[in-house]
Amino acid sequence: MKQILLFISISFWMIHSGSAYSQSVNAHTDDSVFIRKIYDEALSNGEAYENLRVLCKEIGARITGSTEAQMAIEWGHKLMTDYGFKVRLMEITVPHWERGNKEAFWIRKGDGTITKLNGLALGGSVGTNGILRGKLIELNSLEELKEIPEEKVKGKIVFVNQKMDEQLIQTFRAYGGCYPVRGSSASEGAKKGALAVVIRSLGLAIDNHPHTGSMRYHEDVPKIPAAAISTSDAELIHKYIVQHPNEEIEFVMEMDCRKLEDKISYNVIGEIPGSSKAEKIITIGGHLDSWDTGEGAHDDGAGVIHCLEALRIFKALNYQPEHTIRVVFFMNEENGNMGGKTYAKLVKEDGEQHVAALESDRGGFAPRGFSCDGSEEQIEWLKSTAPLFKEYDLHLFEKGYGGVDIGPLKKEFPDIALFGFVPDSQRYFDMHHSPNDVFENVNKRELELGAAAVASFVYLLDRQLD
Amino acid sequence: MKQILLFISISFWMIHSGSAYSQSVNAHTDDSVFIRKIYDEALSNGEAYENLRVLCKEIGARITGSTEAQMAIEWGHKLMTDYGFKVRLMEITVPHWERGNKEAFWIRKGDGTITKLNGLALGGSVGTNGILRGKLIELNSLEELKEIPEEKVKGKIVFVNQKMDEQLIQTFRAYGGCYPVRGSSASEGAKKGALAVVIRSLGLAIDNHPHTGSMRYHEDVPKIPAAAISTSDAELIHKYIVQHPNEEIEFVMEMDCRKLEDKISYNVIGEIPGSSKAEKIITIGGHLDSWDTGEGAHDDGAGVIHCLEALRIFKALNYQPEHTIRVVFFMNEENGNMGGKTYAKLVKEDGEQHVAALESDRGGFAPRGFSCDGSEEQIEWLKSTAPLFKEYDLHLFEKGYGGVDIGPLKKEFPDIALFGFVPDSQRYFDMHHSPNDVFENVNKRELELGAAAVASFVYLLDRQLD
Repeated sequence: MKQILLFISISFWMIHSGSAYSQSVNAHTDDSVFIRKIYDEALSNGEAYENLRVLCKEIGARITGSTEAQMAIEWGHKLMTDYGFKVRLMEITVPHWERGNKEAFWIRKGDGTITKLNGLALGGSVGTNGILRGKLIELNSLEELKEIPEEKVKGKIVFVNQKMDEQLIQTFRAYGGCYPVRGSSASEGAKKGALAVVIRSLGLAIDNHPHTGSMRYHEDVPKIPAAAISTSDAELIHKYIVQHPNEEIEFVMEMDCRKLEDKISYNVIGEIPGSSKAEKIITIGGHLDSWDTGEGAHDDGAGVIHCLEALRIFKALNYQPEHTIRVVFFMNEENGNMGGKTYAKLVKEDGEQHVAALESDRGGFAPRGFSCDGSEEQIEWLKSTAPLFKEYDLHLFEKGYGGVDIGPLKKEFPDIALFGFVPDSQRYFDMHHSPNDVFENVNKRELELGAAAVASFVYLLDRQLD
Repeated sequence: MKQILLFISISFWMIHSGSAYSQSVNAHTDDSVFIRKIYDEALSNGEAYENLRVLCKEIGARITGSTEAQMAIEWGHKLMTDYGFKVRLMEITVPHWERGNKEAFWIRKGDGTITKLNGLALGGSVGTNGILRGKLIELNSLEELKEIPEEKVKGKIVFVNQKMDEQLIQTFRAYGGCYPVRGSSASEGAKKGALAVVIRSLGLAIDNHPHTGSMRYHEDVPKIPAAAISTSDAELIHKYIVQHPNEEIEFVMEMDCRKLEDKISYNVIGEIPGSSKAEKIITIGGHLDSWDTGEGAHDDGAGVIHCLEALRIFKALNYQPEHTIRVVFFMNEENGNMGGKTYAKLVKEDGEQHVAALESDRGGFAPRGFSCDGSEEQIEWLKSTAPLFKEYDLHLFEKGYGGVDIGPLKKEFPDIALFGFVPDSQRYFDMHHSPNDVFENVNKRELELGAAAVASFVYLLDRQLD
């Protein structure tokens, strides 16, 4: 049955892209004119920047399970209601981890001098239960940790100083290369008897902002504390060790973080019901939760705002979509993805028909294009939209990742096309998961251009999908 | 004779682009490999960011004729000497305008309440000779000022509140639309007996940073003071006037600025002499002077650094160019362009042969491409380089402006191709000519990617030009 559905679905896309692009120049011109209106609305009457300000400044960091997350849900519900969307909350059960009251990191050199470090517990880590001290051993990579003999690690605090590769032009690829370091170092260290692990922050800039992010404990391995220190501290320690190869350096840490009971939380859903194809749903969204440091401005306040603003623009321009266009503010992308998983499961159970989804979760920077996690035909369709975006400086229209939140839809709807909004990636990892991810680091025009690009793309999906 | 030279030159370009692109895949692959090395060097061992820090923080704003400008000349001379380039100073005579000690702006409402404004004298303006007061009249545009009857303006201070058009995706086009407002409002106002003119800052963001920039007095018209106030102050005044249409608002200003005697200054020139085609010169550069506010980080510290770093990368990679590659730190782009004019004149008098020039003067943002002010063949050649830059996310390869500094070369060498480096333009006018144009607002990776793009492009010019 799945195979038959797949065939039918691909046919729709094929027929459609065929007709839309061979049919007439008029259709194209109309689209071009409407896209220009979308951009004008976003740039001249846009509410994206002010909405993001409220989310960042009146609510702030909003880790899953926090009161701030709940306030963000209420903010989203009210705002989408005020905009005239059809709004509901979707209940989900979410993990609840909190940083606690105390967090501090030092090194103590051989001569007893101490240096305070800029660090953050990794999300999901256990605490240290008071002060924790151990001899520091520096390793260059997770691979080195996996291969090193147990006796070199046992009873020590392991510092995994693996750098993101600055030579990769697409910074998300550099991030991907270090992602397992954050996720697995604790359990790899614990297997060999380490007391705790500390990683170099996943960021490209050398600065004092530590970057947190999720980690996971492997089963049947002791849970040891895991933290990240800033890249400048990582460099400092590395240089000291190179200069003093025989000196014993002690790492001292205290972390009060802990996992609490699961909680009830919500995805916030707002939609404009479709006209002729109301039963066919296009989901667009970002995640409302953030890490508990900074303000979640780029990650993913910007993505939430892009999608919200797209729908607002449709309303402002009196555009009645044929499909139902649904904005979802997903909860818990950062440490569990219960929002994305529950959404896919429940809409499937409700018998809904999902034809496409788009996620914005790469920051509020100047748009570069869109990626497609889909069939060859769907990717070809994506590429066919490129000429309409040329004058707006979008140029990347390629096969690629959709997003964490919309990912689970693929399992339930194998024929769905998943799209990712792709902004410029150069500054993203200067802020990502750090105290630096604040409203001030989002540029108004770049945010507005992102919203306009998302709105234009969703408009084309609505116009051209069967 | 000029026509014959033109013909020969075009032929070279044509033959060349023909041969380079039909010849072999190998040539292409070699270029691709070398460009990758350029990027790796810029991103892993780059000195661009640290050099820009020194220029911004150890020298700072460096308006033509200032001691800071002289220190920047000495900095450039030493740095290029240390890098092993062949260095010289080219003497030029430059205008000298300074802001003086005192500058302040207020409005005084009908009820006597006063509000201090964020303002800057425009470069080249006369001072107010103590306090200057006048009834304020707001006009929406320079066109309105040109058309309004004399009696409505006479004896008043004219506020030209012309906004940059935020709907234009290319922000330089929006700037171009307001450029005459800054340049001509004073003389247009003076023709009708205005006491002074105040313009809305040329910037897209609504904020408190005033933006200065050059203005010129027309001949045979009285010279009246000219200033810019911040966009948020412009909005504030506008709203107040709309709400109080019959109220008399007084504008109060004091500016101590003045034009001084011309001075001697210098272009700083460093080059790597060519091998087989040493007599053919490729000039690349930016301008060393800046306005006297902020630190001239994007305008044009970044451009100077892009070109300096390109040559440093050639040295670091042991690349011996066939042509002579010359970096010029031009002086006085902002208020006279005596550096660019003198350079073109003197190299012509010296009998030099100039085949191409490139300028970077649009900020240190993520690269988007290159523009060409040249013949159809030269533009076609530019476009043919696009595939080599695709993996680095450059996508704009089009006919367009070269730059102010290299512009005068066209008169002396009609066949020359002038190229402009085109970075993303969205944030540029948030900083341009304002106290906000500081080192902290330049992103390290974006700067490095700009230097790598410039170096790669100059490499291709060297390889492919006859």
